[in-house]
Amino acid sequence: MAGSTFGKYFTVTTWGESHGKALGVVVDGCPAGLPLCEADIQTYLDRRKPGATRYATPRREADTVQILSGIFEEKTTGTPISLLVPNTSQRSQDYSEIASYYRPGHADYTFDEKYGFRDYRGGGRSSGRETIGRVAAGAIAAKILKELGITVCAYTGSIGPVSIDRARFDKAAILETPTAMPDRTASAQAEHYLSSCMAEKDSSGGMIECVVTGMPAGIGEPVFDKLDARLGAAILSVGAVKAVEIGDGTAVAAAKGSQNNDAFFSDGTGIHKKTNHAGGILGGISDGSPIVVRAYVKPTPSIFREQQTVGKDGQNRLVQIKGRHDPVIVPRAVVVVECMTALAVLDLVMANMTARMDKITAFYRPDF
Amino acid sequence: MAGSTFGKYFTVTTWGESHGKALGVVVDGCPAGLPLCEADIQTYLDRRKPGATRYATPRREADTVQILSGIFEEKTTGTPISLLVPNTSQRSQDYSEIASYYRPGHADYTFDEKYGFRDYRGGGRSSGRETIGRVAAGAIAAKILKELGITVCAYTGSIGPVSIDRARFDKAAILETPTAMPDRTASAQAEHYLSSCMAEKDSSGGMIECVVTGMPAGIGEPVFDKLDARLGAAILSVGAVKAVEIGDGTAVAAAKGSQNNDAFFSDGTGIHKKTNHAGGILGGISDGSPIVVRAYVKPTPSIFREQQTVGKDGQNRLVQIKGRHDPVIVPRAVVVVECMTALAVLDLVMANMTARMDKITAFYRPDF
Amino acid sequence: MAGSTFGKYFTVTTWGESHGKALGVVVDGCPAGLPLCEADIQTYLDRRKPGATRYATPRREADTVQILSGIFEEKTTGTPISLLVPNTSQRSQDYSEIASYYRPGHADYTFDEKYGFRDYRGGGRSSGRETIGRVAAGAIAAKILKELGITVCAYTGSIGPVSIDRARFDKAAILETPTAMPDRTASAQAEHYLSSCMAEKDSSGGMIECVVTGMPAGIGEPVFDKLDARLGAAILSVGAVKAVEIGDGTAVAAAKGSQNNDAFFSDGTGIHKKTNHAGGILGGISDGSPIVVRAYVKPTPSIFREQQTVGKDGQNRLVQIKGRHDPVIVPRAVVVVECMTALAVLDLVMANMTARMDKITAFYRPDF
Amino acid sequence: MAGSTFGKYFTVTTWGESHGKALGVVVDGCPAGLPLCEADIQTYLDRRKPGATRYATPRREADTVQILSGIFEEKTTGTPISLLVPNTSQRSQDYSEIASYYRPGHADYTFDEKYGFRDYRGGGRSSGRETIGRVAAGAIAAKILKELGITVCAYTGSIGPVSIDRARFDKAAILETPTAMPDRTASAQAEHYLSSCMAEKDSSGGMIECVVTGMPAGIGEPVFDKLDARLGAAILSVGAVKAVEIGDGTAVAAAKGSQNNDAFFSDGTGIHKKTNHAGGILGGISDGSPIVVRAYVKPTPSIFREQQTVGKDGQNRLVQIKGRHDPVIVPRAVVVVECMTALAVLDLVMANMTARMDKITAFYRPDF
Repeated sequence: MAGSTFGKYFTVTTWGESHGKALGVVVDGCPAGLPLCEADIQTYLDRRKPGATRYATPRREADTVQILSGIFEEKTTGTPISLLVPNTSQRSQDYSEIASYYRPGHADYTFDEKYGFRDYRGGGRSSGRETIGRVAAGAIAAKILKELGITVCAYTGSIGPVSIDRARFDKAAILETPTAMPDRTASAQAEHYLSSCMAEKDSSGGMIECVVTGMPAGIGEPVFDKLDARLGAAILSVGAVKAVEIGDGTAVAAAKGSQNNDAFFSDGTGIHKKTNHAGGILGGISDGSPIVVRAYVKPTPSIFREQQTVGKDGQNRLVQIKGRHDPVIVPRAVVVVECMTALAVLDLVMANMTARMDKITAFYRPDF
Repeated sequence: MAGSTFGKYFTVTTWGESHGKALGVVVDGCPAGLPLCEADIQTYLDRRKPGATRYATPRREADTVQILSGIFEEKTTGTPISLLVPNTSQRSQDYSEIASYYRPGHADYTFDEKYGFRDYRGGGRSSGRETIGRVAAGAIAAKILKELGITVCAYTGSIGPVSIDRARFDKAAILETPTAMPDRTASAQAEHYLSSCMAEKDSSGGMIECVVTGMPAGIGEPVFDKLDARLGAAILSVGAVKAVEIGDGTAVAAAKGSQNNDAFFSDGTGIHKKTNHAGGILGGISDGSPIVVRAYVKPTPSIFREQQTVGKDGQNRLVQIKGRHDPVIVPRAVVVVECMTALAVLDLVMANMTARMDKITAFYRPDF
Repeated sequence: MAGSTFGKYFTVTTWGESHGKALGVVVDGCPAGLPLCEADIQTYLDRRKPGATRYATPRREADTVQILSGIFEEKTTGTPISLLVPNTSQRSQDYSEIASYYRPGHADYTFDEKYGFRDYRGGGRSSGRETIGRVAAGAIAAKILKELGITVCAYTGSIGPVSIDRARFDKAAILETPTAMPDRTASAQAEHYLSSCMAEKDSSGGMIECVVTGMPAGIGEPVFDKLDARLGAAILSVGAVKAVEIGDGTAVAAAKGSQNNDAFFSDGTGIHKKTNHAGGILGGISDGSPIVVRAYVKPTPSIFREQQTVGKDGQNRLVQIKGRHDPVIVPRAVVVVECMTALAVLDLVMANMTARMDKITAFYRPDF
Repeated sequence: MAGSTFGKYFTVTTWGESHGKALGVVVDGCPAGLPLCEADIQTYLDRRKPGATRYATPRREADTVQILSGIFEEKTTGTPISLLVPNTSQRSQDYSEIASYYRPGHADYTFDEKYGFRDYRGGGRSSGRETIGRVAAGAIAAKILKELGITVCAYTGSIGPVSIDRARFDKAAILETPTAMPDRTASAQAEHYLSSCMAEKDSSGGMIECVVTGMPAGIGEPVFDKLDARLGAAILSVGAVKAVEIGDGTAVAAAKGSQNNDAFFSDGTGIHKKTNHAGGILGGISDGSPIVVRAYVKPTPSIFREQQTVGKDGQNRLVQIKGRHDPVIVPRAVVVVECMTALAVLDLVMANMTARMDKITAFYRPDF
């Protein structure tokens, strides 16, 4: 497979490139009977839309979604849902020069090596616009999870040297700050930092955190389809992500067992954990605590400084990238991480329905 | 799917639990004509064998592999290779007590929640012995990659507070130190640290680094099957791994674009990169530089200190775990990470063979 | 999975229903560098277009394909190809009555049982229009196969009691007769038969034969992905097909081994078979002879006679179906069978590229 | 994938060849809590065991199954079930001659073309012994289906010119006659016919019918994973099967719509059909009537007559096959068809559990 499909039960196949006619996604395996309209999806797409703030590319795309199939009388029918977003702002001339060389930090060289040539307009399939399909599909997954009492929420954890302070956590700020940080003070500091990066013709990396609450225990499969593994695959498949952590993440390497183990306790309402170093996953299976996952995102590779590279002619040369580029990828990638998390979680929620014989019997022989 | 299969082309299906009759793996999709014998696989299994050092459980298992199918006249036939390792040391009585409570940091609770009950002997399927199948299959993958000029090498990067010094890198030390560190000085320090952990009835986490050299550019698929995503899934599917990094990993979040971009240059022999912050992957596709991936491993959850937990009866209680347990997971997990990396890479090496029309035509119509 | 995807290497995901905005398909895994334009696909779609003859529904659809992604400078880029065909002729009022009862021979009842409700307009996803995506994708598969010297050709073998005479085989007639028969005499007889069916408010079944020539030996996998099994799945997934035969098909049950075995012989140019009872497949793998496969198609279930059925209210009732319906499915299904065959064959052609170690080594280390 | 895995939910991976150490299967996705012991599986294996009658090869194999994993306290745990059957009767010398030429009707030539060489002992992976894994796994599938009230029953429908008479249907005879016919009179005739074939050093084909009763309506997916398509793939993947029919099968081609449509009626207990031409499947989804599927099996290709073929040296030659061979494949293949049917049906039974939002909500929020 060429890998444009994610999920085994709720399968999502994305298509489209930066400068084609449109981008989109086909969602197969969406259960029948879910109320769904374009506004449910548009809300999510608007969160990744370019042009919203000064830290996002001024390229303006309406990014308006159309539902082409799978809905009847405002409910899903169980058949594939095809979603399409037309490309409207395609200044191909901006990109004509980059056909002649390999941009550092981009996939130009690797695409040429793999396919023999590439669609160089706006990065083609390696463009950030590829995530439109992920977000559109993830919006549906998130709506289903919500019906099951499961909520997925991502936000910016850090930009360059500026990290959020959990004591100031303010959920409303995620959608209201230009940084998608849940901390207005940190957001202001990060904005200041980004301004200095832009002044230096440079860009910044950052970190995205995603928390899943309301997870029942028992979701995830014990070996290759561990919940951690599927989340890792989902999030590392997002361009520019270079690391994924679950729970305490890299910090576990320096920890002792007595620090890292989460003690269980019972309070009459059920079994809980005193701490959540594990990030809600034990042995690849959810333990009922919140799932905590973090994605580390590299700085935008398109910087306006002069850089050394090689041309299509094989000659060394200096280049200076032009065009419209975000100085930081993170704020617009927050919703992408949220959506990929929703897709990974929902797929395993569905997979879990066939794990026990007594549940299957109850499904098919309810009166037995 | 219940997720005991990894890979789309070179598919690996593992089975078995700690206290069953045997563990094993079926490798489907191994190309025909590869010379293969049991010794090729045993070498890898011996690296994860318990009982080798004082930092590994004294449980002694021969862990001797048998090839049951797929070989004829000492070569693979293209049909499934079934590998089996009998369980020989099963002191089930050691584990009888743990049936009655949920061990902190283990999958006891999550298995019960998912399946309604669990095979509590030695952790059942969530035991570290589950990795025997991964290693046996990975040994074959590594052998194929070697024939293609690709080498996979993993080693311990840190244990607790002790990290290797790259200036002292000594490949031979990986197989010769009890820590699997490529730095004998750091290894001695780590041993000292582990002794103190054991004296405190505690355990330590650590980090494993894996480097793939000889990778051709062009391996990996651009969207969900990015090389990063497949490596992430492979390594996060190993029990106890809580974070995965590619190249500079989490550090990219604090970096600027001018620091993180790798400049291309040409030296007459081809196109290369001056640095390798990207860890050999751009846009999900290998760029010809070494692949660098790191796994962060939590401390052994079985510690001999008293811990708080909940019993099967729902009552809070204190427990003290007995039995045979490594004070650190990392050294024996090194070969597991190496093998999972080999499996992920080989699968994408195979996937890449159908990426270009000219190559397919050359395959089927060589004289055309 | 909800099963709207076919193929493991050349994967085809179809979407759309009779009365949605559009129908389409996403092709993932198409190799890069194939010249492709909309006309390549339109030619195939035109062969299944309604309204061409008096034996096809007078419903007129332009069925014009648009390529939305995956092409750059008139060649495939290796990324997903999204194809879309707008629905233009949607007389929903014709179908409003059928919401109230279950049409015999249709999927109305089974969809309601599965999903709780259904999109009753024109059969929704169970409409013959669902095949548009298959044909659009199959056109690409057929073009790739042609580049490899492999040709797929389907035609009508029988309609009701009228069968073609192989002595009169005339390939041009397939596209020129309204029956898609390669025999103009039989076609005239079949037309006469269909007229009598229509006069009786009845419909007719028929048989489609498909032949693949130029197949190299060695295509197909030995167990569950036998070439026969994949062809069977492909063709039985077409609505209304109730039987599939390979080579001599059902006749083998009455044959003796001495009659059914195909003798091998050598003529200096290679190894051939004197006969082809096996239909070009031995042990699930192509033997170099033409692949011969037949699909048996049931009569159009929408007949204008009065029929007994049950209403949504659970009451027995008589119904008389109205609307626009072909008296025979076969002629328009010929191109669907051809395309599904192309998809099944191409997928296994790609799968075969990783079967041998020497070929993989030659691919990656050509000078070794 | 190399195609040794069947099923997406209840996945079955078979391995082993005629003359390796053993054959087996790994079942992944078996729900937890099913009572299972070796006797459950042995009963099915005994039905395909060689040596039972004069129409089966006198080769004597105990074919005793061992369960190696996935069971704890006599119940399935939800983890992979590994089943192994040792090869005990391996007279390799019988097969040494066939290394030098290609047997007509066998996969010798196609394996050599695909893989460059073959394990020629007893047909290697293309041996009928490959079905051991299918039967062992199918026994588990059948047991699960039985818990759901679904029964799968296959029997011989014809051998050569002798067909069963449905008026004499006697279920007990299936297990008691050497032909596996549910008609003792036809069985006696078939035995007489087989004796004459053997006297002529020849072999006979035949037909197997399989009926699934107790099927709920709603099983099967509407497009590529139609119940028909999955059954077709399952059964055409059995060696020697050359045609598959659902319901009226090939006869639909000559039928009229008024004959072929099954009228619905209501009798107070639910909706039923007056006839079952459709074989229990409409639009790829079960309609609540019995599923009826037929497999047409070619004559044993190993006949003792002189046959023309080509040697490994490329020279034309005459050969006379020796060894131990059944004069008819059908009786021993009955249980294989039954098991493949069970596997295909169970997989779609599981797939169906995620088809509706209300059912998913009820599963996860039963009190909501």
